[in-house]
Amino acid sequence: MKSRDHSRTPVRDALRVAKGAALPDPAASPVGPGKKAKALGELAAIRARLEELQEALYAEGVGGGRRSVLLVLQGMDTSGKGGTVRHVLGLVNPMGVHYAGFKKPTTAERRHHFLWRVRKQLPSPGQIGAFDRSHYEDILVPRVQRLLPATEWRARYAEVNAFESELVKAGTAVVKVFLHISPEEQLKRLRARLENPAKWWKYSPDDLDARAHWDGYQRAYAEVLRRTSTAHAPWFVVPADRKWYRNWAVARLLTETLTELGPRFPEPAFDVADELAKLDAVGART
Amino acid sequence: MKSRDHSRTPVRDALRVAKGAALPDPAASPVGPGKKAKALGELAAIRARLEELQEALYAEGVGGGRRSVLLVLQGMDTSGKGGTVRHVLGLVNPMGVHYAGFKKPTTAERRHHFLWRVRKQLPSPGQIGAFDRSHYEDILVPRVQRLLPATEWRARYAEVNAFESELVKAGTAVVKVFLHISPEEQLKRLRARLENPAKWWKYSPDDLDARAHWDGYQRAYAEVLRRTSTAHAPWFVVPADRKWYRNWAVARLLTETLTELGPRFPEPAFDVADELAKLDAVGART
Repeated sequence: MKSRDHSRTPVRDALRVAKGAALPDPAASPVGPGKKAKALGELAAIRARLEELQEALYAEGVGGGRRSVLLVLQGMDTSGKGGTVRHVLGLVNPMGVHYAGFKKPTTAERRHHFLWRVRKQLPSPGQIGAFDRSHYEDILVPRVQRLLPATEWRARYAEVNAFESELVKAGTAVVKVFLHISPEEQLKRLRARLENPAKWWKYSPDDLDARAHWDGYQRAYAEVLRRTSTAHAPWFVVPADRKWYRNWAVARLLTETLTELGPRFPEPAFDVADELAKLDAVGART
Repeated sequence: MKSRDHSRTPVRDALRVAKGAALPDPAASPVGPGKKAKALGELAAIRARLEELQEALYAEGVGGGRRSVLLVLQGMDTSGKGGTVRHVLGLVNPMGVHYAGFKKPTTAERRHHFLWRVRKQLPSPGQIGAFDRSHYEDILVPRVQRLLPATEWRARYAEVNAFESELVKAGTAVVKVFLHISPEEQLKRLRARLENPAKWWKYSPDDLDARAHWDGYQRAYAEVLRRTSTAHAPWFVVPADRKWYRNWAVARLLTETLTELGPRFPEPAFDVADELAKLDAVGART
């Protein structure tokens, strides 16, 4: 295993959940650009690097490599999970992206272990998986909505940690991002959805019910971050009131993770000189 | 069903396989821009329209709609199937894209009907599916490589037509694209792959074997285009020696198909005024 190169992971270091520390201001820039124009400019440069890294990861997978990346996006309604997928994962080749959104479990899904549906959506070798909500909903929602006894959802912390440890051992780098917004920003965004018929599809009356439990969800998230931010699969808190900062930060987290992974184009499974000679012979006949 | 608006489908009309017509020159522009700078400029405008249409299709799917789009990409090695996915599907939100590449069938896959693995990768409602190779390989390869008796691969024309008819009835618009390149262009691209270590992963010695059967594949493609270009699922031939033309043309084919489909943002499943009133009440308490 490569030793971590700290000089290359400043955003990971700055946004990683720290024991005992309060969450940052949702409108802050704890690291990186404080202005929109600068963030957008940097994003263009990140894009080139991210595309390169993703192509190498994909190629490594084609060549038999086992490694992959899983980006887990969590946050309150309107925190920008979908927008992050669009603006950050949208920077790279869709061939290498596997998106999975997890809604309220269906009756069929509820008859299985809560990780059953999640395992089916894991990225293949070479892929970047993006989870729009995830197995963390199975701790947060039963707790806040009082759907399960505390002993049951509490037992899931250990299950989730063991599951993610298994993923990491199998070659998946797990990047868990909590998109942190303020209740004021959520109110604005919910109103914007209701005022625009082209955004009605993003709105659900359940969003207001969840908002009524704002403090409960914040407490539930705080405990999730504390109990499941592990050395192998840390949580990152991204201030998400400003969309340009959120996109910049998640793109950087992905880039740093991929840089650390160091994907490599595979060795050829053929003799390059031989194939070039055959190609020349074919060319001469054309 | 909406009647077709021909004024909006000039590229579909110009590139659709016509009975008895020869294939266009792989370096031609039968419709649209003849210069790279113009094509790239137009692509930027197409992007905005394609994003809008795709968002509406996705929203329609969330709202219970059944419709989807399936882009089938076929062509000789190096014809740009992967590049088209990257540059055309890469224009839209990855949330709504489902990519599936079909390689040489595995032993397990060969024990099933040839459509088995294809059905598992169909786009969900609201999605744009992209097939990088497809069920057409199961006609082309057995024919050219003489893996099956002619009666067997010939029987597949009818099966494929029935399968696609079923898809269209279920709400999927099927866009079949043959990326048409010249043997000279292929030679250049294969050489470029062999000369660049970062492209070795895209090369396989099988590519040269397939190239040795160039004429056989061209005949096989010609018959596929003739027998499976139907009113419900026509084939389009895209001259693909110039990547910028290929990307422009496929982006236009997708845009015209989506425009014809006319996806609609769903009606809200809630009372908008009620929800706004509740939101105001919540806001006042914050």
